[in-house]
Amino acid sequence: MKRSRSCDVVVVGAGMAGLTAARELRRAGREVLVLEARDRVGGRTLSKTLDNGVVIDLGGQWVAPTQTRVMRLVDEFKVDIFKTYTAGDSMLLFEGEVIRRSGSFPFKDKESLDDIRQCMEKLEVLAASVPLDAPWTHPDAIRLDNITFAQWIEENTTTDFSRFFFNWYAPAVFSVNSSELSALHAAFYFGAAGGVALVTSTEGGGQDSRFHKGFQELSLRLAEELGDAICLSSPVSLIEQGESKAIVHTDHMTVEADRVVVAMPPTLSGRIRYNPPMPASRDALIQRMPMGTAIKTMIRYSSPFWRELGLSGMVISQADIPQLVFDNSPDDGSCGILLLFCEGGAARRWGACSSMEREAAMLEVLVKCFGEQARNYEEIIEKYWVEEEFSRGCYAGTMPPGVWTTLGESLRKPVGRIHWAGTETATSWNGYVEGAVQSGERVTQEVIDAQG
Amino acid sequence: MKRSRSCDVVVVGAGMAGLTAARELRRAGREVLVLEARDRVGGRTLSKTLDNGVVIDLGGQWVAPTQTRVMRLVDEFKVDIFKTYTAGDSMLLFEGEVIRRSGSFPFKDKESLDDIRQCMEKLEVLAASVPLDAPWTHPDAIRLDNITFAQWIEENTTTDFSRFFFNWYAPAVFSVNSSELSALHAAFYFGAAGGVALVTSTEGGGQDSRFHKGFQELSLRLAEELGDAICLSSPVSLIEQGESKAIVHTDHMTVEADRVVVAMPPTLSGRIRYNPPMPASRDALIQRMPMGTAIKTMIRYSSPFWRELGLSGMVISQADIPQLVFDNSPDDGSCGILLLFCEGGAARRWGACSSMEREAAMLEVLVKCFGEQARNYEEIIEKYWVEEEFSRGCYAGTMPPGVWTTLGESLRKPVGRIHWAGTETATSWNGYVEGAVQSGERVTQEVIDAQG
Repeated sequence: MKRSRSCDVVVVGAGMAGLTAARELRRAGREVLVLEARDRVGGRTLSKTLDNGVVIDLGGQWVAPTQTRVMRLVDEFKVDIFKTYTAGDSMLLFEGEVIRRSGSFPFKDKESLDDIRQCMEKLEVLAASVPLDAPWTHPDAIRLDNITFAQWIEENTTTDFSRFFFNWYAPAVFSVNSSELSALHAAFYFGAAGGVALVTSTEGGGQDSRFHKGFQELSLRLAEELGDAICLSSPVSLIEQGESKAIVHTDHMTVEADRVVVAMPPTLSGRIRYNPPMPASRDALIQRMPMGTAIKTMIRYSSPFWRELGLSGMVISQADIPQLVFDNSPDDGSCGILLLFCEGGAARRWGACSSMEREAAMLEVLVKCFGEQARNYEEIIEKYWVEEEFSRGCYAGTMPPGVWTTLGESLRKPVGRIHWAGTETATSWNGYVEGAVQSGERVTQEVIDAQG
Repeated sequence: MKRSRSCDVVVVGAGMAGLTAARELRRAGREVLVLEARDRVGGRTLSKTLDNGVVIDLGGQWVAPTQTRVMRLVDEFKVDIFKTYTAGDSMLLFEGEVIRRSGSFPFKDKESLDDIRQCMEKLEVLAASVPLDAPWTHPDAIRLDNITFAQWIEENTTTDFSRFFFNWYAPAVFSVNSSELSALHAAFYFGAAGGVALVTSTEGGGQDSRFHKGFQELSLRLAEELGDAICLSSPVSLIEQGESKAIVHTDHMTVEADRVVVAMPPTLSGRIRYNPPMPASRDALIQRMPMGTAIKTMIRYSSPFWRELGLSGMVISQADIPQLVFDNSPDDGSCGILLLFCEGGAARRWGACSSMEREAAMLEVLVKCFGEQARNYEEIIEKYWVEEEFSRGCYAGTMPPGVWTTLGESLRKPVGRIHWAGTETATSWNGYVEGAVQSGERVTQEVIDAQG
């Protein structure tokens, strides 16, 4: 016999979206219960302590000054953050050569740099033109949604290097290849973050600061506050809706509630059964928002030795593992950590290989850029988010061509007593933790309005 | 307490793929159990008797002479089929005008017809060049998979009408817009059917013949043979795999077996829980094979009055509902039935409207083509397959850009004791019932080989 409970609102998912919704709904006087599939909270934020005691993030790790909701939580919980290390030269690995440049953008030559700048400017203007709450109403929505971002890049660049750059940049931002998303989605996504420059830059932008004790600390603090309103290891299998209530089923429990907030990636929300079944437009949508694929690897050294060479640790690489390297050392530089990304199609190829094969390929690139010292690491740790049963990818769900303009209206539209949260539903920093928090706030208001 | 059973092989899904696998496995001496989520067999074939006793198909309805596996079943079960009606002129509704042409292709003018022919020829050559069991090994696979079929059309046509035509043709074949699938998938799909001409044509091709008593009869006959080996209304929620066996769970039953055949659209196979969870490559794939969207409507008249006007009933329409009309009357012409398709993005828009709104829009087109008589119908019946909880679209799952080349190898690759069937895994007439039957045969051999 299953245990039965009841409350005002069931929140499904204890990532930052669900936790925010639960907190805000409680503040508004609702009794909430949070059902989380995993044995932990935090969703796509997951912090881990390395062998030497340093905490790193296997999931989301950066916060930007303009991510005001996350920054408010940082202040409220008095969580320590610090600026990402950027001093020194950055490197480019292109056509077999290593190019070293001062600053954070290791371009190839002046001609292609100019081309990248004019294309970035176009993208910036385009991003600013997207109505964030309804991208399908953009005057040029149909055309932009019918082409891939790859095609948009092709049409707006002229040099080999600028083409390489933007096709490299797409997986770095979206963790899918430029051919997998529509130009409209790209424009929307940059627009939601406040512009291309903000997404791209470290100082003042999307990679501005990091958490001493890991990004997951915010989730843990929210969870502490919510206490036993959170049920871990409780994957939801079925949500029933009747005239006067909804019933949410896990393997061991049924919960009756007036409203349900589903706070998870759209593709995973489709793995719950619904009775009555979801309307066609919702189901067609969630079939079309696949999660990105990224492998995040951290390699720890006894010291950030590249800094002594005048290097920032940043590498833009044409090799597909890693495609991007950052200095991810702790603030005090007590050890050196390099963060290596492999994203999009490359992550799928390399995800099918062994850890040893991946390691060998990555070390080869690091040795090319930083010398033989790069071999002498003390610890290596990697995370392939597609393997996580209850994330199935990162950083977020992405819209391929033709989805925004034919199904976009269903993204946030409640279905009866069910309301949708999660960073994919956000209009501010969609795909980021900030977007998750925004969605938790929005869905709270939606539930309150619906309850009258 | 759940009922426990055991058998050699559990087949999940009683569409034509699952039923074929069950039959063949039984013939090979295996004890099988088929678990079907619905209260009926037949999957995406579903026949219905109209008020006047005529049987029509709400799902798949045509069979081609080169669909040898289906034709063998037709012979074996002595099921009656008849040729699709094609006599008379066809019509084109383009830029507000109705153009009438002899034959089955109502082209606009000679110039665009020539352009369509040269483009069809290119597509034919391309389709013939795809290695059907491994499209990602095509010499030009990366380029073809990185562009949409829409872009391929753009690059290979020169006139407005030929562009209209191919962008109209894509949803007619794939039930998604040309921008939603990769050029490689289009080429593969045509190749699997034996070429573009075979997919397109009525006589001798994909629309050659129809079933007197409906296509579902084949499934019903197979089900009759399988008897109580089929459990209806048994949606599978979880498949566990251990060292020596698999356990398949429904709400009311657990079945132990040596092997499991999952015979359903890839996207729906992702809605089952697996323990251990699916590997990353399988999960990333099934997030990226959305089902097409089509609304199939049949309008019955007292007689096929358009035949008297010298018309075949065939209409190619720029209006998005219907986009395509066929004469779907019974063989004896005892009544007249028009079959109207609305597909792809248009189906999503119109699917969100009321039946009355759809009907009004469709009748307007029919009146333009066939005169006022078109208003005097006796029965109208429509089917929007995305609404079906256990199909969630039709005709099949389709690959957007970047999927074949990064995840295609996972399409048929067994995961431990689990083998994958369904028309989406076929190399012959992928997306058709023929492909479903082929997949059932293939998976049978796979299971036998695996059992040694």
